[in-house]
Amino acid sequence: MEELMSQLLTDHSAASCRRNLATVRDALYVLSGKWKIPLIIALQAGPARFSDLQRHVEGITPRLLSKELKELEQNDFVIRREYPDGSAPITYELTAYSTTLNGIITALQEWGAQHRHHIQSS
Amino acid sequence: MEELMSQLLTDHSAASCRRNLATVRDALYVLSGKWKIPLIIALQAGPARFSDLQRHVEGITPRLLSKELKELEQNDFVIRREYPDGSAPITYELTAYSTTLNGIITALQEWGAQHRHHIQSS
Repeated sequence: MEELMSQLLTDHSAASCRRNLATVRDALYVLSGKWKIPLIIALQAGPARFSDLQRHVEGITPRLLSKELKELEQNDFVIRREYPDGSAPITYELTAYSTTLNGIITALQEWGAQHRHHIQSS
Repeated sequence: MEELMSQLLTDHSAASCRRNLATVRDALYVLSGKWKIPLIIALQAGPARFSDLQRHVEGITPRLLSKELKELEQNDFVIRREYPDGSAPITYELTAYSTTLNGIITALQEWGAQHRHHIQSS
């Protein structure tokens, strides 16, 4: 982390910019849209049903929620748990792999908090 | 950073989730779309003209580039430098405030790199 950070802050050659760009675009591609990270944060509270998620993530339509959950499943961030005998409702939960996103989520959260101060004080 | 991270990893109550959600949505709102962070990375190499940016950030249309640069200016990440006497071309450069995004950019970059390995090995 420290190493990458200092590299980012000092090495601004065109070639390094292009490499950074490609890797960040990979990340943005997988996390595209404004719903995936909020959904992951909502699921950090534990497994949830479709209707729970719709309530927690304000403003998402059922159609978008369904689409985003499918994409999160395809990218190995979310598991859909279904009981064939119908003994329990279908739930969604985070995979172990989803925790690799914690660094991004923390960074977004820290920056969002400081940006709020920045706007209020300007 | 450490403190927020450990809070994120341990405090998953509904109330804390809602707080995290609100702050992260603020950040995602300002950084919305797939172009703003790539544009900031491209500008880390130094001031650039509109045409330079169009070349460096592959796939962006002139119309989108113009719109995204305006939003980046409004959010205090980019300055548009114009010389009234026309002695030099109009250039775009990063503000000091834009460096507050380095944590997010590093996190996206690190995660993008590890996600590429994850996909290649699975």
